[in-house]
Amino acid sequence: MASEEVIELAKRRGFYFGSNGAYGGTAGFYTFGPQGSALKRNVEDAWRDRFTVREGNQEIQAPAVMPEPVFEASGHLDTFADMLVECGECGESHRADHLVEDASSIEDAEALPISEVEMLIRDHDIVCPACGSPLAGEDVEEFNLMFKTNIGPGSGQTGYLRPETAQGIFVEFPRLKEYARGQLPFGVTQIGPAYRNEIAPRGGLRRLREFTQAELEQFIDPEEDEPDLAAVEDVEVLLYPAEEQEAENGSYVETTIGEAVEEGIVGSAWIGYYLGLAQEWYERIGVDVDRFRFRQHLPGELAHYSADCWDAESEVSGDNPDTATPGEGDWIEIAGFSYRSDYDLSKHAEYSDDRFTVFKEYDEPKTVERATVDPDMATLGPKFGGDAAAVADALETLAERDPDAFEADAVSVEVDGETVTVDTDVANFSVEEVTENGEHITPHVVEPSFGVGRTVQTLLAHGYTEDVVSGEARTYLDLDPEVAPTDAAVFPLVTNDDDLVALAEDIADDLRSRGLTVAYDDSGSIGRRYRRQDEVGTPFCLTVDKTGLEGDGPDTVTVRERDSAAQVRVPVDELADELTALLAGGDFAAFADQYETVETDLETQ
Amino acid sequence: MASEEVIELAKRRGFYFGSNGAYGGTAGFYTFGPQGSALKRNVEDAWRDRFTVREGNQEIQAPAVMPEPVFEASGHLDTFADMLVECGECGESHRADHLVEDASSIEDAEALPISEVEMLIRDHDIVCPACGSPLAGEDVEEFNLMFKTNIGPGSGQTGYLRPETAQGIFVEFPRLKEYARGQLPFGVTQIGPAYRNEIAPRGGLRRLREFTQAELEQFIDPEEDEPDLAAVEDVEVLLYPAEEQEAENGSYVETTIGEAVEEGIVGSAWIGYYLGLAQEWYERIGVDVDRFRFRQHLPGELAHYSADCWDAESEVSGDNPDTATPGEGDWIEIAGFSYRSDYDLSKHAEYSDDRFTVFKEYDEPKTVERATVDPDMATLGPKFGGDAAAVADALETLAERDPDAFEADAVSVEVDGETVTVDTDVANFSVEEVTENGEHITPHVVEPSFGVGRTVQTLLAHGYTEDVVSGEARTYLDLDPEVAPTDAAVFPLVTNDDDLVALAEDIADDLRSRGLTVAYDDSGSIGRRYRRQDEVGTPFCLTVDKTGLEGDGPDTVTVRERDSAAQVRVPVDELADELTALLAGGDFAAFADQYETVETDLETQ
Repeated sequence: MASEEVIELAKRRGFYFGSNGAYGGTAGFYTFGPQGSALKRNVEDAWRDRFTVREGNQEIQAPAVMPEPVFEASGHLDTFADMLVECGECGESHRADHLVEDASSIEDAEALPISEVEMLIRDHDIVCPACGSPLAGEDVEEFNLMFKTNIGPGSGQTGYLRPETAQGIFVEFPRLKEYARGQLPFGVTQIGPAYRNEIAPRGGLRRLREFTQAELEQFIDPEEDEPDLAAVEDVEVLLYPAEEQEAENGSYVETTIGEAVEEGIVGSAWIGYYLGLAQEWYERIGVDVDRFRFRQHLPGELAHYSADCWDAESEVSGDNPDTATPGEGDWIEIAGFSYRSDYDLSKHAEYSDDRFTVFKEYDEPKTVERATVDPDMATLGPKFGGDAAAVADALETLAERDPDAFEADAVSVEVDGETVTVDTDVANFSVEEVTENGEHITPHVVEPSFGVGRTVQTLLAHGYTEDVVSGEARTYLDLDPEVAPTDAAVFPLVTNDDDLVALAEDIADDLRSRGLTVAYDDSGSIGRRYRRQDEVGTPFCLTVDKTGLEGDGPDTVTVRERDSAAQVRVPVDELADELTALLAGGDFAAFADQYETVETDLETQ
Repeated sequence: MASEEVIELAKRRGFYFGSNGAYGGTAGFYTFGPQGSALKRNVEDAWRDRFTVREGNQEIQAPAVMPEPVFEASGHLDTFADMLVECGECGESHRADHLVEDASSIEDAEALPISEVEMLIRDHDIVCPACGSPLAGEDVEEFNLMFKTNIGPGSGQTGYLRPETAQGIFVEFPRLKEYARGQLPFGVTQIGPAYRNEIAPRGGLRRLREFTQAELEQFIDPEEDEPDLAAVEDVEVLLYPAEEQEAENGSYVETTIGEAVEEGIVGSAWIGYYLGLAQEWYERIGVDVDRFRFRQHLPGELAHYSADCWDAESEVSGDNPDTATPGEGDWIEIAGFSYRSDYDLSKHAEYSDDRFTVFKEYDEPKTVERATVDPDMATLGPKFGGDAAAVADALETLAERDPDAFEADAVSVEVDGETVTVDTDVANFSVEEVTENGEHITPHVVEPSFGVGRTVQTLLAHGYTEDVVSGEARTYLDLDPEVAPTDAAVFPLVTNDDDLVALAEDIADDLRSRGLTVAYDDSGSIGRRYRRQDEVGTPFCLTVDKTGLEGDGPDTVTVRERDSAAQVRVPVDELADELTALLAGGDFAAFADQYETVETDLETQ
């Protein structure tokens, strides 16, 4: 649970809040306010820059509503469900597996059969957390977590809100591979909403019914394609492998990506590559690396098709647990890195009418022997009537599978459950030499999948800082300028001086026209205005005061840096360039050295 | 209908295509491919820059799934419906009003009662467009266009996919006004998906079931707040007012925003202000102003609460109609500008438990007389028992409504349908002087609402150009650099020269690290590569060739501009700065003058 202070600040300052409050609220839905919406978008832009633009990948945008056959193929219709138990007394719905875990020492009740969960509810005398009535005897059922709807009127199609953005990519693979001109490896990304109709949502942004994912589907030829591991081999990471989690006093493994892959701690070089990219990216946007780790999925957590999977986890409690010790702190999953093999594409190939392969050219054309038949229909027709074509097909299949069978005088095939025997001569069996230039292969998928809302929650938790400035306690968000909702705030010191107000407005307009996000605030004391901007993480505050307009030199304003609360006096016509440079990562100390430091403690005015 | 050429190019080059093709397609859903996704996002960023950042407005992001009570209040549950008729023979669904309009001279069949539409189907012998069976006798029904779903399991809530992003703003007004510190005017924006479960979607991006809106809700005090009309008064617009549409040979009105408002052609200064901003914005992103107009809603089109409404319309046909003549061309609505009065906030105030007002301070406190009662409960209690409190409340209400009633010796009030009379003394009636500092007012809403997908469709239609270069016909998209999906493409002239390839890759990486979107293409002839980029509107192509690496001077590459196909040779280390300047709106001719023009016709190599 993120600290109460962070949640309170998020609501009060417009980062996020529960939706539809005027109508009593809707559990599992949050609205991003002005600050949160900007922070979230900046996180998305930073992700796009790293995982789409710089990687040379391609981004698409698919609809969130998809038709039922897609989820028959993906498996979500059958298996994307949680265990539901409803209280017979008050009608409240609960996750049955969670109740069992809370009441027993069982850690992964989700993996148990329903009948056993029902028995455990009885055996542990579990009661309804809402009203206290016993739940023994209530049915536990699988509740599918997809939001269901109808597409079109009346006899229209059943549709679902996608449970992950990934399906919008997989299902369009036949077209997307054309845009990549059929060449592996290539990556396709998508940032957008996904939905899980949670039984009992809880925990703020942690478990929502509507949330934003940033996903990358990396399509590779598993036999040939290698990632550019050299680019990240020196990146240092904190790993929590499955075997350390299962050991009595398991500990973290501090290592580099290069070593982790070489020693086989991370089994796939592709997964290693993306762990490295992710580590660097999280650092870049301001995640506290001391409260960040990669945790490997336990064998029981892994999907059957997944060879290896790691989660990025961040610690978001308000206190300062010893995060160097596994088991301490409040860790949430903020990204997953999964080697999905050819599962997704194979399933869609099986269920749809399209091809989910790429043509892989051989280095040299290969000459292969191919057994074929050319059945004599003039003989088969009279003999088998309507079944003749099926017999011919069965002979064709047999020739491919077991050409040796045609060495005997007669061959037998099965048609409609009946064994049929024909003279081998009738099949006109032959073996031909064929030149093949390549083969159709189903690419494997490596999937880094990021939760955007949970990243936002992490940035607030890690950025939340309390200190003392000018003798007064203050709270500020230590957000990186790349993601901070507002780039700069402009304050006229007083509002009863027309020149001063006009200049402040001009400065704000000018900065906005340069693409900066600018807040303008003329209400309350300067100290109060600084505090407001500190609380939303604005890196720089500009104050237009009388002092800056007096004298013969150029007009100046003060620029105050958020974390240090240090102030310098800067000429107005240098402002836009200097601020742009600072926001792009420039060093404030070096910048401040060029200008007059303001000793006057404006904050107490 | 956008021209076939544009639709074909959109699909082939990855702008957009019908979703779920592998499963037979899903009508009304489109997926934006890599090019379209980038173009769409650039349009959204340009909109945000103009209507959020530069206006000093605040953007939020609310969930697309909202609970039923929201749409009871908004009116969508009752009235957001189309007339549906299903063919009894083949089961196909149709818009009944459209069938009637196609078969008769009736122009707005949607406004007719259902019984009349059923009669018209009979009278005009209308048949099913799909199978030809007569539709006479089939029921016409109101089909609600919201996608319906269930939130949570079992006895959960009914939810809908929002039909417009606006409701996510209106419903959070009580909180949003706090972020604006209770001061009108303020504006809140949102860019996001909206949904209409169309009966029979058609026309590509024109009428989708899932689409993206960019909406601005401007909250104003109708008695005090004025827009900054001076900022747009000289903007020239082509208006198509309602009365010109209704006249026999109606024509356009070519005027400026200032004059249009002054002469009352545009009734509201706020609407005029946003028409001006929109005109400038559409021009900025590359809409052809000769194929763009503002059309006023006819009285019959107006919602009952809307004082005035104008649509921005663009012409998207493939031919070149005389767009200066109303009635010529294929016009689609791409934005709406509506004065919505206090309708939205009043409805939510009525249906919810929250306050949808702001406190408006008077210039001077006002002293008003307020009649109050202080009923003697010691007398009322014994006399009325359990009804005593209700009697007291009724006296209070009467005092506010009709203080004169307390001049008589006895007063009568109605309680639970019964008239009750008490001695006036018991009420302890008095009139007090109260000082009031202000009043609670319900803001009015001005709503500019933009369709993002339709803007994308317009940019493709207006940018599509055919010409001849080096004697060969070519197609290119004349997209503004601000919205073009790719900023620059890098080509190594040959792939068998390691130095040359390494330099090309370095240049691509370097440009990407500067935030540019860069395509890298080493496949096929240079001419073919230029054509590919021309078709997706890439403003600049960079070719790395042997000539540029030879000699003693710095390495150079050629830079080719899309529209003119002109090429100049530029030193590699000046490339990033020059390109950045060009993409920000720099003049290519002035840039080209500094460098050596390439006469060699690389395109035919």
